[in-house]
Order: sequence, then C-alpha cells, then structure tokens
Amino acid sequence: MTLPASETAIPDVEISYAAIEQAAARLVDRAQITPVLGSRTVNDRTGAQVFFKCENFQRTGSFKFRGAFNALSQLTPEQKQRGVLAFSSGNHAQGMALAGQILNIPTTIAMPQDAPAVKQAATRGYGAEVILYDRASVKREELCEQIAIERGATVIPPYDHPDIIAGQGTAAKELIEQVGSLDLLLVCCGGGGLLSGCAIAAHALSPQCRVIGVEPAAADDATRSFYTRTLQTVHNPDTIADGARTPFLGKLTFPLVLRHVQDMVTVSDEALLRSMAFLWERLKIVVEPTGALAAAALLEGIVKAPGSRVGVMISGGNVDLTKIASLLIH
Amino acid sequence: MTLPASETAIPDVEISYAAIEQAAARLVDRAQITPVLGSRTVNDRTGAQVFFKCENFQRTGSFKFRGAFNALSQLTPEQKQRGVLAFSSGNHAQGMALAGQILNIPTTIAMPQDAPAVKQAATRGYGAEVILYDRASVKREELCEQIAIERGATVIPPYDHPDIIAGQGTAAKELIEQVGSLDLLLVCCGGGGLLSGCAIAAHALSPQCRVIGVEPAAADDATRSFYTRTLQTVHNPDTIADGARTPFLGKLTFPLVLRHVQDMVTVSDEALLRSMAFLWERLKIVVEPTGALAAAALLEGIVKAPGSRVGVMISGGNVDLTKIASLLIH
Repeated sequence: MTLPASETAIPDVEISYAAIEQAAARLVDRAQITPVLGSRTVNDRTGAQVFFKCENFQRTGSFKFRGAFNALSQLTPEQKQRGVLAFSSGNHAQGMALAGQILNIPTTIAMPQDAPAVKQAATRGYGAEVILYDRASVKREELCEQIAIERGATVIPPYDHPDIIAGQGTAAKELIEQVGSLDLLLVCCGGGGLLSGCAIAAHALSPQCRVIGVEPAAADDATRSFYTRTLQTVHNPDTIADGARTPFLGKLTFPLVLRHVQDMVTVSDEALLRSMAFLWERLKIVVEPTGALAAAALLEGIVKAPGSRVGVMISGGNVDLTKIASLLIH
Repeated sequence: MTLPASETAIPDVEISYAAIEQAAARLVDRAQITPVLGSRTVNDRTGAQVFFKCENFQRTGSFKFRGAFNALSQLTPEQKQRGVLAFSSGNHAQGMALAGQILNIPTTIAMPQDAPAVKQAATRGYGAEVILYDRASVKREELCEQIAIERGATVIPPYDHPDIIAGQGTAAKELIEQVGSLDLLLVCCGGGGLLSGCAIAAHALSPQCRVIGVEPAAADDATRSFYTRTLQTVHNPDTIADGARTPFLGKLTFPLVLRHVQDMVTVSDEALLRSMAFLWERLKIVVEPTGALAAAALLEGIVKAPGSRVGVMISGGNVDLTKIASLLIH
C-alpha cells in the first residue's frame, strides 16, 4: 500500500541495473520484444532522430505486464499457492491477471463497481477473479486487509515495489539494445515505476542520456514533487490520461525519480489529444492518452532536442474506442 | 485507362513471379519491410495461426507505394523527364507522389475538387502537383488526354498495369519470406492489382496456398465477375471501404484473378466496421476500412480455416480520424 510521505519515513532503496537485467532474463519468451517505430515526418518536424518504443504492442496492451510478471515470478512457492491481490481497474490489473495465469498463481483483482465492463471482462478473460467494491461505502485499505487476511494473498502494488520497478525498466533496456545509445529518453509518469526503472536502465546503457518524465498538466504532482523535492499530491485530477491520475509518487519511486531523472515536464490534455491523434494517423498505432504523454512533450515542442537521438516510450494502447472517438469529435 | 470488357477484347497478359522478384529488388531500401503481427485472441477465436501483414506501416500508409515505385523506376530517362500523371484521390495518389519524389520525376495527380483537403495536402506534401477538377463538368478521360498531351506525361493507372501488379505482389512475397508457407491468404479486392499480384507470389512460394479475395458486399463486382466469368461492374457503391469502390476489375487483372485466385467472398459494412474496431482495439493498429476487409472475412467466420496457417493482408491505414470516429459512435 502506498502512503503519503507525511505518514512514513522515505526509505532510500536503490534499484540496481543488475535487478533490471535479471528481470529481463525472466521475461525472455514471456514478454513481447516490442517494435520500435520511426517516422520521417516526426524527424523532420523535431530535427531529432526519434525512436518510438511501442509498449502498446506488449502483452495485455501495456508495459505493466513486465513488472507484474517479474514480481510474481519471484514469490515463494507458498506465496504462489496462496495467491496474489491487486487493486486496479487499469493496465496493472490486466498485467497481473496474465502473469498470474502464466505462472499458475490465483490472482484476485479488486476494482471499483463502476470500472468499465470491458476492463472487467478483459481481466476475467486472463483468468483472474474480479471483486467489485463500492467506492463510496468501502475503504480500499480495509478491503485490502480483509482479503489479504482471508486468503493469505500477497498484495502487489502497481508501482511502489522493487520488482515492479525493475520489470518496467526492461522496456528502456530493450529499446537501447534495439537502437543504440540515446541522448534523451522521454517517459510518461503516473506513480513513477516505469519512469524510475527506465531511467536506471538508460543510464546504465547510455550514461549521457537525459531522462525526462512527462505528466498531464492537471496531474502534475510528480513535477511539483521533483521541483520542490517534497512529495506533492493531486486528488481525482481531471485528465484524459487515466494511467497518470495516480495521486502521488511512491515511497520507493519518489527518491528514485529525484536521483535518476533529469527533468519533469507537463502536457495539457488538449496537446495530449492532438499528439495521440497524430500518432494514430501518422504512425498507424493505437495509443492510449497516457501512452501519448512522452510523445506529446516532443511533438508539442515542450522538450526540444534538435540533432539528438531521442527515445519516446509509448506506454500502452488500451482504449475504449467509442469513448476516444467521442473525444476526437468534440 | 480502364475500359469495360464489353468495349475491348480481354488480353491475356501473364505476370511472372520473376517480375515480382525484380520488383522486390527495386524496392530494397525504398519500401519498408512491414511487420507481421499475430494475436493469441485471433488464433483462439479462429482455430488458425493467423499472420497479419501490416502494409498500413508501409511508406505513405498503404501497399500502393510498392506498385507506384516499381512502375516509375522502369520508365525511360525521357519518360522520367516528361513526368507522370495519375488520377486518384486515394492511396495511389500518395504512393505515386512519394515514388516520384524519390526518383525525381515530376508527378501530377488529378483529383476531384471535393477530395478531402487532408489528402490533397498529403499528396502535395510528397512534392506532387495536384490538379483539381470538377467531376460534374469535366470528363476524367478528356482531362487525362489533355494533360498527357500538354505535358507529354505518362499516365500510370492505379492497378491495371503489369509493373503495378508486380509491385503489389511483393507484399505477399515478403509475408511468406517472413513467416513461411501458408495454407490460405486473404487479400482485399478493389481493382484487383494487389489481389492478383499477391496470388501469383503466394503460389510461387507456397504452391498449396489458397488465395481468396475479399470485397465489400455493396461493391461485389469482382465476386460476381469471378463467379460468372464475365466482367461485372458497380457504380458509386455505398460502402465505407473507399479503396474498394472501384467500378470493375481491369483488362489485365480480371483474367489474372480468374486464373490465380481460388475464391471471392464479400463482407457487409457492418461486419467490416466491427472487424476494423477489433483490429484497432486488440492489435493496436490503425487500419482503414478497406484494409480490414481480409481480416473481416476471417474474424466474421465468412472464411473458416481451423488448423491452417493463414495470411491476412492489412492493405492500409490512411483514415480521416474524425470521420472514422463518427462511424464508431453511430
């Protein structure tokens, strides 16, 4: 469980590149080696050589499978037998469900009752048990404790866990192995698991690489935390980037972001939607709003890098098409 | 220019696999080697092993670049200097424009005045001159003759040309080289250039492969022509598959389809839209309606092939996002 910094001392856990290498070894033949796409139009427009790392083609449609599989595969036989529990109505749910299915670990996913039916179905489709709870009457923490005690299940948080962070870092490792060293890597930031893991991998393989995190302007807690060096929060931010509505960085990810990330920037929802549509129309890939954050920072000129080799993490492509369609029209 | 069969004797021009091999050699480092995607969900649903050949990732967003580049690169120096002319408001226009730009051949594209501004801009963006004409007052044939005489330009038709057909066939050659032999190949059919070229390549590399063409139900001229062995036509068919609104097969493509294609099937627009949305949501790729025809035949169970290795040609991904968005909502 993630707690605000005020309630707890911030531990200073380092994630080593060796942990990311071990995660990558575990993911061989389990995760997709996702393609890297380029675009002459984007290169012309930015003056950079841009490499889009397409984790929207990852199994379950996002990078989350990497961390979930890495975490679950390291449980003890007894933990595996008792099963795992996650709270998520998003990509972590699907990543966990598939990892659990592959590793034959009973997986329970708790979702709010109002989670989209399509997400519930996808998670059940990977063999997980979905428990719905009423946001208004049930406290997540209490439900978590209850299920964990009843079932003896291990709770796997979406980002604030060393094995999750190391797993997500394999995305940047794979990118740099595919295209060579980078001058700049842009990564979206929700809870900071992908960002911190990728920063550690990027600096190990490409020491001069600047790593910049990208947040929605309406959910800029990590950017403010980065600049003030004090954990900041947001509450129910109004942004289309649902994967980055996370209220705060984690106890592990906050110090990792401070230590390994060179800058943080934000993108308005308007710019994000424009960039998402650009990626759909020009690169012919379906990218979810959160997945377009890093690209938006570059395409909108918020980060400029002429003459540079730039990696852009496309984190996922799970969209409700009719919902996105209405955003594109209005 | 294509004329209905009734106005002309049908010549029996064969396209050899050697011509497709030569086209492939010309396209090295010019065309993209497009990726092949698979989907566990699709395999489970169909009982087949399905390989989606993603020509939506081809340069200019469709397979059309292959044929255009192959045709243009074989012009004489004098023809190259005088330039080329095409009538198209679709993917052939962009394929021609880019091929002309690469080969430094002046390229003129004639489009109806009401062609979408975005298509005009894309074609001009590749360096072609766009001439707009009024569909109501100007006959395409007369305009064509006039421009061809004034400029001495060579007219490059969108499908009924040996070099175009051979160029399009390289898509199937590349697919089979990537994934190995196939039991079945599904290809969309407009004018029949892609279908006949791919059928010839498929049979050369994978002799037992059945090749099936797929048309929109509302533009089923090729299917009716195939079954009656007499050229049938459609006029302004009402289908969202704009790339398959072609009124009839060509003088070259009709006999090639009769000789090399094993069957033709049709797909309703409703089924097509459903399959297109499925490809967007599950494969995370942007596919235009015509580009989803072949997939729809399989996904909708119109063609069944359990236990088979099935190639599905995804022909292109050029969409007007707001237009498609409104289709997805309604």
